[in-house]
Amino acid sequence: MEQVKYILEEKEIPQYWYNILADLPEPMPSVLHPVTKEPIKPEDLAPLFPMELIKQEMSTERYIEIPDEVRQIYRLWRPTTVFRARVLEKALKTPAKIFYKYEGSSAPGSHKANTAVAQAYYNKKEGINRITTETGAGQWGSALAFAGACFNIEIKIYMVRISYDQKPYRRVMMQVWGADCIPSPSNHTNSGREILAKDFNCPGSLGLAISEAVEEAASRDDTHYSLGSVLNHVLLHQTVIGQEAKIVLEKIGEYPDILIGCVGGGSNFAGMFLPFVKDKIDGSHPNIQIICTEPSSCPTLTKGPYCYDFGDEAGLTPLMKMFTLGHGFIPPPVHAGGLRYHGMAPIICHLLNLGLIEARAVHQLGTFQAGVDFARSEGIISAPEANHAIRVTIDEAIKCRESGEAKTILLTLSGHGLVDMAAYQAYFDGKLHNYDYPKEKIEQALKDLPKV
Amino acid sequence: MEQVKYILEEKEIPQYWYNILADLPEPMPSVLHPVTKEPIKPEDLAPLFPMELIKQEMSTERYIEIPDEVRQIYRLWRPTTVFRARVLEKALKTPAKIFYKYEGSSAPGSHKANTAVAQAYYNKKEGINRITTETGAGQWGSALAFAGACFNIEIKIYMVRISYDQKPYRRVMMQVWGADCIPSPSNHTNSGREILAKDFNCPGSLGLAISEAVEEAASRDDTHYSLGSVLNHVLLHQTVIGQEAKIVLEKIGEYPDILIGCVGGGSNFAGMFLPFVKDKIDGSHPNIQIICTEPSSCPTLTKGPYCYDFGDEAGLTPLMKMFTLGHGFIPPPVHAGGLRYHGMAPIICHLLNLGLIEARAVHQLGTFQAGVDFARSEGIISAPEANHAIRVTIDEAIKCRESGEAKTILLTLSGHGLVDMAAYQAYFDGKLHNYDYPKEKIEQALKDLPKV
Repeated sequence: MEQVKYILEEKEIPQYWYNILADLPEPMPSVLHPVTKEPIKPEDLAPLFPMELIKQEMSTERYIEIPDEVRQIYRLWRPTTVFRARVLEKALKTPAKIFYKYEGSSAPGSHKANTAVAQAYYNKKEGINRITTETGAGQWGSALAFAGACFNIEIKIYMVRISYDQKPYRRVMMQVWGADCIPSPSNHTNSGREILAKDFNCPGSLGLAISEAVEEAASRDDTHYSLGSVLNHVLLHQTVIGQEAKIVLEKIGEYPDILIGCVGGGSNFAGMFLPFVKDKIDGSHPNIQIICTEPSSCPTLTKGPYCYDFGDEAGLTPLMKMFTLGHGFIPPPVHAGGLRYHGMAPIICHLLNLGLIEARAVHQLGTFQAGVDFARSEGIISAPEANHAIRVTIDEAIKCRESGEAKTILLTLSGHGLVDMAAYQAYFDGKLHNYDYPKEKIEQALKDLPKV
Repeated sequence: MEQVKYILEEKEIPQYWYNILADLPEPMPSVLHPVTKEPIKPEDLAPLFPMELIKQEMSTERYIEIPDEVRQIYRLWRPTTVFRARVLEKALKTPAKIFYKYEGSSAPGSHKANTAVAQAYYNKKEGINRITTETGAGQWGSALAFAGACFNIEIKIYMVRISYDQKPYRRVMMQVWGADCIPSPSNHTNSGREILAKDFNCPGSLGLAISEAVEEAASRDDTHYSLGSVLNHVLLHQTVIGQEAKIVLEKIGEYPDILIGCVGGGSNFAGMFLPFVKDKIDGSHPNIQIICTEPSSCPTLTKGPYCYDFGDEAGLTPLMKMFTLGHGFIPPPVHAGGLRYHGMAPIICHLLNLGLIEARAVHQLGTFQAGVDFARSEGIISAPEANHAIRVTIDEAIKCRESGEAKTILLTLSGHGLVDMAAYQAYFDGKLHNYDYPKEKIEQALKDLPKV
């Protein structure tokens, strides 16, 4: 029988996270304090994060040990499986070999659990029993709720009100794991109360939810704040994905020619490709192609300028140098909620700027068509976010059919779409459409970039 | 680190299904033709099923080879993982060891895929490219839709209208895999048209949906019918579950004192316990306790008489000797849709009648509480059906705490609850309640038992 599934043993879960900062050909641009615009110092972040995570954020050590307590929980779903998409290959009549690594087997159903568990652990270790965060569609909120249950930490989640009302099922998942999820804007914070005073029916935004979560964490000694993407330590925690993939591929004598994943804040795909970028930087595999896929309606990497901007809409976070559409840009309501972010992880932006990776934007309808084709071939119903990566994978496999090249493609499948069936329903009902490039809104938002 | 997860290799997927009919201490009662009331013959079933499945239905061979084509698809998610519930054990302060086997990792999210794939394969092999079936809440329909995609078979699913309207997400899953799902009653069949003529807004019932699916299959040469539980061959296909569990436990030197699972039609738990019942029958493990859990509101095994009844509400199916609440009984609307069935697999009923297994009924609220406790300990959000088994597992573990006995419990977790979050929401919102034993409705239904 042809092999389709590659599983590692529990003892092969990586012992270390891989830190790309040790191997960059040029150092990362500094992160700046939002007020002083001086490079940020560890103590600036101390009210929000445990010191161990702040150290990781700034570390240039190549390997950072994964605590046993974290690996114990990883073992519930890790190592995750690498599949070979033989049925899809046949359907596409492509000579390409398509492998995919599936992160949907964690209890919350996505890669987000990899960092949620680590962040909860370090907070607990420093005596923190309460964490706030924000969530849009709910993937991150449910992952942190799960991690809170693992370490008996109280989790409070500010969920963008429009999602809270329209997408109740991820919120119920958070509740099952014992988290407190409330709609933002709320009357729990000054930021929330100010907005509600102006507009009692405000639908909220991710930027506002961040403001509320940060405000509460900063104002309470017993409470920290947690972020699900963008930051260096979050990407670091996701590198278990790529390290496991490398072990599998090495065992079967393969190495990818092309890596493909979707990017919103950037953590899932960075988790896969950072251990491979290492090989590109050190010259052992100089020609691998690494393609970040993003929505055409939120084309951060393909259309944004590379400059300093805030991570949140309200301008409370440090300034990071990144490709950005402007922190005030509100993307069109595509169903891939996890990709609706104005900025991008600074590590990804730096690598793109150095020409080590590339980016491609795709339209919504094509991504759902790809997701349906994938489900009918491979069984798994993928998240709308991951459908962006499947779209480009299929496109690349078709190019291989046309050129006759038997390339090896490695696809990162960040999560399942079982809590997103309303999006598939809208697709089948013909209610989805592609969005034009929101040129004017982006130009407007870029006018408000902070002066650095 | 303490082991929590036990994974077999792909080559350890069983090569054979185990057929309990070879080892029964007394033969099964005959299945009777609904009109002649004579024992049914293979040719009676030929319009609906491929001959290979009819042979399996009646076979007394101990081991039936699993075709390579079926094992190839099983490999997408099998062997399934056995977990040790160490966190739950600690939370319960029990000396019991709790193991659970999780069938939610298949693409449709439950054990149903094990038989759906096999049934689709045998139909395809006999040249059938079109299958009808019925579904209630949608677990079975989505599994057959997935199997149809695997073998390129057109699947038509009659879904009970009230579920079709109220639970759209499983229906969308079927659509993703390319199946045609329509609400029943429909105007596609005489049975449907007759009902619609009387009541255009009829919410439908599983019995009626069966009638529609059977009628269409019987009236078209190119179309067969498929059933997701109850029949011998369906239980047979599920025995991969128990065989894999035995291999894992043998490797770690364990053997269960208690097996616990939920039963609706009976296939998931039978798939686990039949290979263990063998050991009870042959005397090698005479004392294992096998507990079927069912809803108090649909107490087939705990309250029903053991007699001949139809498998469907309309009385079209053969007569099977089983514990039954009467084929006209419509259970209260508990959220565990898969357990709302008036009858039970004849194999399970026979074993219960012989005293080889036992049954226990539990109330709805306690099952959801157990599901929440389980999710907060073990991470997995379980299906409302499987929560019945978790409830009894926790009860037994608490008994062990009280008695000081370190029993080994093996729980069967039939699927995840990610498409059932509305049920959890209703639970948290205080909208669920327990149902009294529906004594009068059952007594009424039992008056209509067929005379044999």
